[in-house]
Amino acid sequence: MIRVAIIGASGYTGAESIKILLQHSKAELAYLTALPEECGAVEDVFPQFKGRCNLQIEPLDLDKLAGLADVALCCLPHKVSMTFVPKLLDAGLKVIDFSADYRFKDVDIYEKYYVKHTDTENLKHAAFGLPELFRSQIKRAKLVANPGCYPTGASLAIAPLLKEGLIETDGIIVNAVTGSSGAGKNPSEKFHFPNMNENLFAYGIGTHRHMPEIEQIASDVAGKKVTVLFQPHVGPFDRGILSTIYCHPKKNLSNEQLSELYNGFYKDEPFVQIRKDAPAVKDVAGTNYCHIFVTNVKGKIVCFSAIDNLVKGASGQAIQNMNIIFGLEEVIGLR
Amino acid sequence: MIRVAIIGASGYTGAESIKILLQHSKAELAYLTALPEECGAVEDVFPQFKGRCNLQIEPLDLDKLAGLADVALCCLPHKVSMTFVPKLLDAGLKVIDFSADYRFKDVDIYEKYYVKHTDTENLKHAAFGLPELFRSQIKRAKLVANPGCYPTGASLAIAPLLKEGLIETDGIIVNAVTGSSGAGKNPSEKFHFPNMNENLFAYGIGTHRHMPEIEQIASDVAGKKVTVLFQPHVGPFDRGILSTIYCHPKKNLSNEQLSELYNGFYKDEPFVQIRKDAPAVKDVAGTNYCHIFVTNVKGKIVCFSAIDNLVKGASGQAIQNMNIIFGLEEVIGLR
Amino acid sequence: MIRVAIIGASGYTGAESIKILLQHSKAELAYLTALPEECGAVEDVFPQFKGRCNLQIEPLDLDKLAGLADVALCCLPHKVSMTFVPKLLDAGLKVIDFSADYRFKDVDIYEKYYVKHTDTENLKHAAFGLPELFRSQIKRAKLVANPGCYPTGASLAIAPLLKEGLIETDGIIVNAVTGSSGAGKNPSEKFHFPNMNENLFAYGIGTHRHMPEIEQIASDVAGKKVTVLFQPHVGPFDRGILSTIYCHPKKNLSNEQLSELYNGFYKDEPFVQIRKDAPAVKDVAGTNYCHIFVTNVKGKIVCFSAIDNLVKGASGQAIQNMNIIFGLEEVIGLR
Amino acid sequence: MIRVAIIGASGYTGAESIKILLQHSKAELAYLTALPEECGAVEDVFPQFKGRCNLQIEPLDLDKLAGLADVALCCLPHKVSMTFVPKLLDAGLKVIDFSADYRFKDVDIYEKYYVKHTDTENLKHAAFGLPELFRSQIKRAKLVANPGCYPTGASLAIAPLLKEGLIETDGIIVNAVTGSSGAGKNPSEKFHFPNMNENLFAYGIGTHRHMPEIEQIASDVAGKKVTVLFQPHVGPFDRGILSTIYCHPKKNLSNEQLSELYNGFYKDEPFVQIRKDAPAVKDVAGTNYCHIFVTNVKGKIVCFSAIDNLVKGASGQAIQNMNIIFGLEEVIGLR
Repeated sequence: MIRVAIIGASGYTGAESIKILLQHSKAELAYLTALPEECGAVEDVFPQFKGRCNLQIEPLDLDKLAGLADVALCCLPHKVSMTFVPKLLDAGLKVIDFSADYRFKDVDIYEKYYVKHTDTENLKHAAFGLPELFRSQIKRAKLVANPGCYPTGASLAIAPLLKEGLIETDGIIVNAVTGSSGAGKNPSEKFHFPNMNENLFAYGIGTHRHMPEIEQIASDVAGKKVTVLFQPHVGPFDRGILSTIYCHPKKNLSNEQLSELYNGFYKDEPFVQIRKDAPAVKDVAGTNYCHIFVTNVKGKIVCFSAIDNLVKGASGQAIQNMNIIFGLEEVIGLR
Repeated sequence: MIRVAIIGASGYTGAESIKILLQHSKAELAYLTALPEECGAVEDVFPQFKGRCNLQIEPLDLDKLAGLADVALCCLPHKVSMTFVPKLLDAGLKVIDFSADYRFKDVDIYEKYYVKHTDTENLKHAAFGLPELFRSQIKRAKLVANPGCYPTGASLAIAPLLKEGLIETDGIIVNAVTGSSGAGKNPSEKFHFPNMNENLFAYGIGTHRHMPEIEQIASDVAGKKVTVLFQPHVGPFDRGILSTIYCHPKKNLSNEQLSELYNGFYKDEPFVQIRKDAPAVKDVAGTNYCHIFVTNVKGKIVCFSAIDNLVKGASGQAIQNMNIIFGLEEVIGLR
Repeated sequence: MIRVAIIGASGYTGAESIKILLQHSKAELAYLTALPEECGAVEDVFPQFKGRCNLQIEPLDLDKLAGLADVALCCLPHKVSMTFVPKLLDAGLKVIDFSADYRFKDVDIYEKYYVKHTDTENLKHAAFGLPELFRSQIKRAKLVANPGCYPTGASLAIAPLLKEGLIETDGIIVNAVTGSSGAGKNPSEKFHFPNMNENLFAYGIGTHRHMPEIEQIASDVAGKKVTVLFQPHVGPFDRGILSTIYCHPKKNLSNEQLSELYNGFYKDEPFVQIRKDAPAVKDVAGTNYCHIFVTNVKGKIVCFSAIDNLVKGASGQAIQNMNIIFGLEEVIGLR
Repeated sequence: MIRVAIIGASGYTGAESIKILLQHSKAELAYLTALPEECGAVEDVFPQFKGRCNLQIEPLDLDKLAGLADVALCCLPHKVSMTFVPKLLDAGLKVIDFSADYRFKDVDIYEKYYVKHTDTENLKHAAFGLPELFRSQIKRAKLVANPGCYPTGASLAIAPLLKEGLIETDGIIVNAVTGSSGAGKNPSEKFHFPNMNENLFAYGIGTHRHMPEIEQIASDVAGKKVTVLFQPHVGPFDRGILSTIYCHPKKNLSNEQLSELYNGFYKDEPFVQIRKDAPAVKDVAGTNYCHIFVTNVKGKIVCFSAIDNLVKGASGQAIQNMNIIFGLEEVIGLR
């Protein structure tokens, strides 16, 4: 059994990771940590685990951690994460990091959108944890940067077109709507129920940090610089991201050709499903699946993808990465 | 035109009062105040009023107030309210107070459930602002204590039975579910969208402050002490309270007799409608109406009532009271 | 008082029209009709009007109609509408038609997206009822084609750019999300609560009938042919449409220039508000307002607009048109 | 591996059963049937299973069934169920029936609330499938009547009090609110999203078929006739039932005594958790757990229980029963 620690277990991605690991046949929860003020019995922090998990969430003790766990899911926010990850690696653990701290190969982009980077050494060796596109890197990594939720859904939707050089690499528009769990656990005015309920709005206009992340992935896949206009929105539901993506084809592709391309590209991928119609976020809620539909509309190619932002967009993908690192069957715990 | 000030205009009951007064043909918004940090143009505090209201929300200036307004809707929380109400009265204004501070005739009950009372003098002269039951007092009042949302819905539902002495006066059970706007505008963990959405739970078990308020109204109507077990819940919707009330009849009453009783009792009341089937909260959302249905079930009388907690349960009722005080037609602005 | 008939009063746009007209100081509900199986007292068809409206919804009697009403709001579906409108006009009434039957100047486009047109005579004289863009035509019209909900929100958002020739006229992308009331009152699998709740999905991919309607309006405004890729989605809320529109500027425009352009273009329009930040659908829910924000993002101009699909997108706009036709102040009943 | 057939697999309880069985380590989906017009690939009927389940839903073929399956989950509606169950039993299968057809020991009560019973022979031998109260019967049963959703939540909440004779056996009030998935998959006016959303209402007043079912269970546990006033409501969420139950204690019991009683009664039950505070429906959504809290309020005992109506209230409990019948660990597939 792989022994798993969750660092920063008191938030939504922590809870989702606990939920998945409770059903994992080859891994077990070994150690859960959080800030002192957020500690306590798992069942007190998350009533949904009463009777299902008897662990405590404790303040992090690195010595204890080293003896208890083989791998750490690091669910800390950016900036905080890179102060802990080096210590986790030094303690001999494999690390799957949920923050943005190890996602950007170009540290300048990271520093433009986030903060000054304080662990560029480990950054060099981090794998980008989107298995469908970068599996071989992940296999041999000690540190995996788990992708952002939006970049996961958007990148999977356009990768086949970019890989084959079939669309223009500038002018891609990614219009996405996320459920509210993406906002995290801390109450705020925007996500106060009487505001968020029955509501829908755009945010992060021109400035969202997932824009350069999508561009990095897309550029990697295309083998050349790709620019993306990414516009996120948030809607009144818990889980899911629906991305609607508008691309300019370089030459005409029939819907049959598109379907063949996508089915071929993802034919061995258990978690990517090519649909014959538009996916709904509820089709993937609570699962690690990404549903994709692609079609021609008025001279453009429009791609639709749906994922659960907390699963394929966070905890599920992290455990998929963990399975890869440890040589397990990739789908364990995620079906 | 009656000139209306709203004291504490930056919250949900403030917004609802503004909305109603913008449509009122005999009253006008004259002065809006809030805590300094919540001030600004109405359209900045509440984007829904952009182009509809050009006023500023300003810190309270009592001298200015005295010159500008005839009546104050005081939307402050309990305890704060009773520090301002005496000043508003001294400034010559009529006051309709939304807090609990002037609702309890027995100061001991108030102090048991809230805090020490610091304005017992004005408390003596306050009218209880539930027009359907206490209209004559309201007509001649300078200070009206606007009722709580739960007490409004529950009391209207059982008043005819209590007035006629047809039910036992102990053992009444009021089971109610409110929408989330009842929680007010401040973000909190319970009302964070990812928690409140798809959820329903009980709260205030045995301790909710509206329990003694319902008992006071019920006792007034019955002419004897009434005890009530009140259990509130909150559900994933914005507006509305559905009360389901279980009473023991002293003697058998047919459904026809119940229907006659209720239709007779409320026959001149514009805002109380006796239904022939169970009311839904959506039937009254955004209105000042209370829909009631009453029927026999297995030896008990079960009463159902639906109101909008922000309208009949707060701002609408306040303006109904204002109309009464100023001798206007009671329904103006509220149809 | 203008006497208003509603033809097809039993659906959502009928209810919304009734609601608005109950508050209209210069118009009154005179006659309500529906299919025989949907008739009955208004309060039985719509419990929310109990005590507020004592009218009956009756099967249509043209003779009776002619004597009772000055104007008909015709809330029938397309194809049905054009069988009734000629009779309503013959009876001497002004008509505001909610269907698509009189919206398309090019009957071929209508027939491609809908059915064979059977009243091309009246089609010639119909005004397109988007007051902010076509007010002068509406003023002198006997028959007004009330626009679709999506076209209203989308067209208002891009009209200033098109009018001034500042954007490319092909390649405009309109990505929109509507609330579920747009689906109408008839139950269906997609809008069954357990399916629609917590869900979001695209529909009408490449085929939605509002696409040519947006193109017609845009072309009229631009004075040349405009092509639009319109992609609608539906989300789990009752009311509202948020349109996010991506345009290619012909030359650089600063955000200040955009703001000036829009504020100037709509400076006399009571129902269009130019925001300094992204509008939310809840800001306009229940109102006749359209909130617009426009900004530069990565070389494109992105426009956001929010309307209530049942008000500015249907019944509110119809009554705005009615006010114009009868020479009333345009905002009556709609503030 | 236990081979499981699902009869009537095209509805919500069918889908939930499929979902659970896909994760069950000792059972496998063997045969799925539905009405001819609802058949097809599982992934076409339920897009959420695309890539997860390659089975077809087929019209029932009894011969085929007999060769393929050891147990049938019969998800048919009442009346239909009792025409199939005898055949399933004759084919040598164990049967867990989701309908009401085999729940009532007193056939007169069944026939009063439902229809004429046509299989009283098998009725005699059916076990009532609420494991926490009737496990020993279930162990040796060939036919298990899976309980209704409301009766599951309500009965577990009051069983300890009834078993120990601590409350009055008449006058128990069960006030419950269910999520909308309880309505099943067929669209209807009440559950049309624009009606159900933002709504809450009572239904089945005095007539709900789960009332006699709760009374039967309660009477069994108490060893004497128990009468219950059961009032269901439906709210705007997908999953969950919150029951709030008001009982009259025969003598005073402290909260400590109540807590001890409940913790003792359920100490070996994996799926019943005694809370120290009020449970929320979201705490149990998607799980087979029942969370209970019990406390004194004003001389009454108030019990709160939360379950997921589709899991502990239907498919999860059915699989719990299946595990019992086949001598498996009871929690397999349900953690």
